[in-house]
Amino acid sequence: MPTEALKKLKTAESEKISHLDYFNIAISVDCVIFGFEKKELKILLIKSDLAEFANKWSLLGDFIKPAEDLDSAPYRVLKQRTGLNDVFLQQVGSFGTINRHPSGRVITTAYYSLINIKHHQMKITDNEVHWHMIETIKELAFDHKQIMEACLKRLREQVVDEPVIFNLLPEKFSLRELQDLYQAILGIKLDRRNFRKKIAMKNWLDDIDEMEDDVPHRPGKLYKLKTDLKNNKPLKSSVKKAKV
Amino acid sequence: MPTEALKKLKTAESEKISHLDYFNIAISVDCVIFGFEKKELKILLIKSDLAEFANKWSLLGDFIKPAEDLDSAPYRVLKQRTGLNDVFLQQVGSFGTINRHPSGRVITTAYYSLINIKHHQMKITDNEVHWHMIETIKELAFDHKQIMEACLKRLREQVVDEPVIFNLLPEKFSLRELQDLYQAILGIKLDRRNFRKKIAMKNWLDDIDEMEDDVPHRPGKLYKLKTDLKNNKPLKSSVKKAKV
Repeated sequence: MPTEALKKLKTAESEKISHLDYFNIAISVDCVIFGFEKKELKILLIKSDLAEFANKWSLLGDFIKPAEDLDSAPYRVLKQRTGLNDVFLQQVGSFGTINRHPSGRVITTAYYSLINIKHHQMKITDNEVHWHMIETIKELAFDHKQIMEACLKRLREQVVDEPVIFNLLPEKFSLRELQDLYQAILGIKLDRRNFRKKIAMKNWLDDIDEMEDDVPHRPGKLYKLKTDLKNNKPLKSSVKKAKV
Repeated sequence: MPTEALKKLKTAESEKISHLDYFNIAISVDCVIFGFEKKELKILLIKSDLAEFANKWSLLGDFIKPAEDLDSAPYRVLKQRTGLNDVFLQQVGSFGTINRHPSGRVITTAYYSLINIKHHQMKITDNEVHWHMIETIKELAFDHKQIMEACLKRLREQVVDEPVIFNLLPEKFSLRELQDLYQAILGIKLDRRNFRKKIAMKNWLDDIDEMEDDVPHRPGKLYKLKTDLKNNKPLKSSVKKAKV
């Protein structure tokens, strides 16, 4: 065997041993699950089960299992907690300051999810799991407030360019509902005429020739997201066109 | 002590024990370090030191240390490998399929970095570290090709909206160089007049009233990035204005 290759093999051997010191971290996933109800943007939280955070709310998450891909874990968490499959989920970032978890070194990867609160398969059975209005959340367990804010920032960026917002709505919706939802996410009031013009330009919607009923205002037209844009899986957004 | 609080404490205790099974993962960081030279976009690679990947190139990375924040590790790697401090670095995502690393369960967090290849403090001492033209890279060790592509995608998205591209250029540059760089990153040819109009609209540059010298073409004006936009640290991009 050539000396060079032998040297490499030896290096690899010795590295394997010294690296054993490093295999003592746990990885969790945390999900920021957004929903929309009564004109309010909400997230799903659970009472923390750690004594250190007694009575504090935390994100829905779990440690990843030895035989589980990182990106599979949040789907499992969502399924367990809400009964939903095929939800929209996207990785946002990983958080790993040294002392963020009282049980040891735990690095967490955060995902954001958009679900329709009224989805017929939605089943929340745990008494400790509740929807909270984003605006009212002052504090969370761990660094979950910071994680929530990073996910909210990502959501705000994405709803402007990509047709992801529709994951939060029922299949049929009015432009009034859509505008309410954009306003709740972006935290600003939008001009009605201007909003409708911009949405029309995006060419995301099909007019389904039905009207709202049972509403306390003049019934509006109903729309659906165009079929070819429907995708509950994380959107593989194509590279932006060069707008430079 | 109230029963409820006691129950919580007990749950926390038992969880701590069962969770020990999970503390057996290692975390690494991998850096996709972009540079620009002779009209080509390049990345810095190192010969893999693992026998499994003998003679393959890999990203520059390392395991995170027990007393090191996740987001500090890539700065350490950059400093060790290039001599550079204060580089532009941004977290892109974490990669964690079960069998991605031959030494055990290793999840890696990827960062992209933009550096000026001609930086006077740049010092690459390791013989196994080299710049490679992106276009020529067919294969890398581990899942590093996939990681490189995710970072390239992020780079392409960001250079359009945020003034990050200037981290790849010397302090003074011509619009011709800037256009060459955009073309190398986006992989498309841009119209010269249109490009200059769009760049002017962004209001990123100061005309410093100097001309190129020693160039094989008609000397162009030199520009600098506006001082208030200079920021080698990861840009905290503000939430996008609501363009809806």
